[in-house]
Amino acid sequence: MSEHHVVVVGGGFGGLQLVNALKGAGARITLIDRRNHHLFQPLLYQVATTILSTSEIAWPIRHLYSDRPDVTTLLGEVVGIDTAAKAVSLRSGMTLRYDTLVLATGATHAYFGRDEWEPVAPGLKTLEDATTIRRRLLLAFERAETETDAAIRDALLTFTIVGAGPTGVELAGIIAELARKTLPREFRNIDTRKTRVVLVEAGPRVLPTFAEELSAYASQALQELGVELHIGERVVECTTEGVETSQGFIPSHTIVWAAGVQASPAAKWLDVAADRAGRVVVEKDLTAPGYPDVFVVGDTAAVMQTGGAPVPGIAPAAKQQGAYAAKVIRARLAGDPAPPPFCYRHQGSLATIGQSAAIIDFGRIKLKGWIAWWIWGIAHIYFLIGTRSRFAVAWSWLWIYLSGQHSARLITQKETMRDENHR
Amino acid sequence: MSEHHVVVVGGGFGGLQLVNALKGAGARITLIDRRNHHLFQPLLYQVATTILSTSEIAWPIRHLYSDRPDVTTLLGEVVGIDTAAKAVSLRSGMTLRYDTLVLATGATHAYFGRDEWEPVAPGLKTLEDATTIRRRLLLAFERAETETDAAIRDALLTFTIVGAGPTGVELAGIIAELARKTLPREFRNIDTRKTRVVLVEAGPRVLPTFAEELSAYASQALQELGVELHIGERVVECTTEGVETSQGFIPSHTIVWAAGVQASPAAKWLDVAADRAGRVVVEKDLTAPGYPDVFVVGDTAAVMQTGGAPVPGIAPAAKQQGAYAAKVIRARLAGDPAPPPFCYRHQGSLATIGQSAAIIDFGRIKLKGWIAWWIWGIAHIYFLIGTRSRFAVAWSWLWIYLSGQHSARLITQKETMRDENHR
Repeated sequence: MSEHHVVVVGGGFGGLQLVNALKGAGARITLIDRRNHHLFQPLLYQVATTILSTSEIAWPIRHLYSDRPDVTTLLGEVVGIDTAAKAVSLRSGMTLRYDTLVLATGATHAYFGRDEWEPVAPGLKTLEDATTIRRRLLLAFERAETETDAAIRDALLTFTIVGAGPTGVELAGIIAELARKTLPREFRNIDTRKTRVVLVEAGPRVLPTFAEELSAYASQALQELGVELHIGERVVECTTEGVETSQGFIPSHTIVWAAGVQASPAAKWLDVAADRAGRVVVEKDLTAPGYPDVFVVGDTAAVMQTGGAPVPGIAPAAKQQGAYAAKVIRARLAGDPAPPPFCYRHQGSLATIGQSAAIIDFGRIKLKGWIAWWIWGIAHIYFLIGTRSRFAVAWSWLWIYLSGQHSARLITQKETMRDENHR
Repeated sequence: MSEHHVVVVGGGFGGLQLVNALKGAGARITLIDRRNHHLFQPLLYQVATTILSTSEIAWPIRHLYSDRPDVTTLLGEVVGIDTAAKAVSLRSGMTLRYDTLVLATGATHAYFGRDEWEPVAPGLKTLEDATTIRRRLLLAFERAETETDAAIRDALLTFTIVGAGPTGVELAGIIAELARKTLPREFRNIDTRKTRVVLVEAGPRVLPTFAEELSAYASQALQELGVELHIGERVVECTTEGVETSQGFIPSHTIVWAAGVQASPAAKWLDVAADRAGRVVVEKDLTAPGYPDVFVVGDTAAVMQTGGAPVPGIAPAAKQQGAYAAKVIRARLAGDPAPPPFCYRHQGSLATIGQSAAIIDFGRIKLKGWIAWWIWGIAHIYFLIGTRSRFAVAWSWLWIYLSGQHSARLITQKETMRDENHR
């Protein structure tokens, strides 16, 4: 009898946790990703805002499994699944047969049907997204420095972030600090302290998934950093000139989208039911309905908690699902009874506001201020992969703390001067 | 009387040294560069070969002069000079009047009239060049892992470097070590130790500017690392399939160009005489002929040493020229007599072969092996800008020494899967 072949699509938190948990299970594993690296998405906003550099929060997937001869890593893009033949097709034309398939393909940002906004309002999901946002951010200051038209200069110095979830709040806080603390002494014609950072949120408050008292604290901390809050305002149009909301027009040459997410097309590949965000509505054992040999985990799965609330789209949830699917696969391989249904354990919610405040919602225990920031920082360093990255990120943060200087401030990629926020 | 305005074009070694040396001279300085960063080019090959990450060897120029109110930094591209009006024109349409102009615009790689080779054989001058080469290098291994045609797989695993000057030798050494030491345990279908690294040189030996005994040592060290030397072979064609030399065809999907340089168009802007590489043939005080208020320094100037040999195109030479031009400008501003003509002092030549051998040619003293490597490493860390970068680079090297693992192995930029070395 040949070895059981587990094909895992996606090297994010869910996929890696599953592969890690299948160590020694006796299966042959193929891990496919479109990228050659695993990305620590919770710190991606720090790459976009010049605090960290790309290599500090991303690791070659293939290297993570160099000591696992049972794991083969493939750089490739899945374009379809043949559930009858039990095979996935890659864009390169290659086909891979599986015994068990795990879809951990994540989510991307969504524009609620207005995909034409993407070029002017990029979201933040990949390293390239982060360097694009960083480039636009830095170029806006560069262009403002030589701009003679006051209205255009003001629009160049207005940064609008759409969506006040953790990512939006984190981006707004750091951009405000960058403009007010790091950059002022470097420009001769503009006063970067007059930069407007506008945070637009359609809901009734910032960080709506947190307790109200923490949300109120975050609002206040953002305003102290100089962030303008536009709460209860819907975005109706994004252009190269600015953002039109339900309350009026904000002239702004740099817009960042932190509002909606859309799952990967896993549901379409399987032709199964999806929720509004395109996530596969999975069974209690995280398999796709009708396909007991296909697991769906992480942001591309819609999983309900016992109370009826959806499991949040955060890294710990994806990891728990990856570990659970591995447990089911191991039980099947060993001929043991199936484990009890998946049960999500919420460990807490965290968000930072700038570089000295944070909020943590553990449920009963709620923390805010610098102590929350330290817990946040230590937790994130702990969850990075490898001594080298932990050390590098800790050093970058310490350096900013000591010197006030952000080091990852390079404008790179081609067409630097021509393509963007240029009129 | 208004302040004397010095316009400096180019934030490389020559331009920065000049601006540094003009501190307190009483001039108003505008420093223009197409990029927002100064780049430490001597270590750029380490970014291309996954050892260092981009932010470790580049610094925002504007940050370097945050404490110099006399210096205004502009991100802009010079497109012409009106010597009659004493003004430079930027691509943005802006015009800047100068009292003294310093052109420190450097050089780019040259293909001896075969510019069509550039897409298949990129050179190494910018951070984008380095990430392009890194991406192609890593993608070649990824594609070889899934390639079923043995001939294509071998061509994917053949890396050809054209030109055996210091850059070519340094690239070849690290690529050979990457394939033989870092990658073997990570691939399941290919043996990366069978990678061919081919170094093609038209001249009679590697590192022709070094003493023969050091050149012989470098040859031997390269061969010990597994580099194939094709010495005395001229390149006659570069295609996506490989390199045709005067001795035959080398099937190779990844080619790096480290052969020729071409100065920036400074001579054309000024309409003055240039040498074969396009460099301005300057006067003894580094001014352009007929333009005593225009200095040309660094790789875009052709300067002769007293013996008749040209000043080499290396960082210390550019720095000496920048410092000298600053001295002349200071003397003029102070009404002092002009300093004696520029005289280049050669401090030595260095090159590394892989990560444990190097050669240093101080003239009378010649060093090779691990002691030369240590001197090379310490010298380079010393010449980096700022504590943070020195620490980061030292840590990266130490980490590789301790763990054998290269950390900067990300494949980034768009179109990852489609554009390059793909058939």
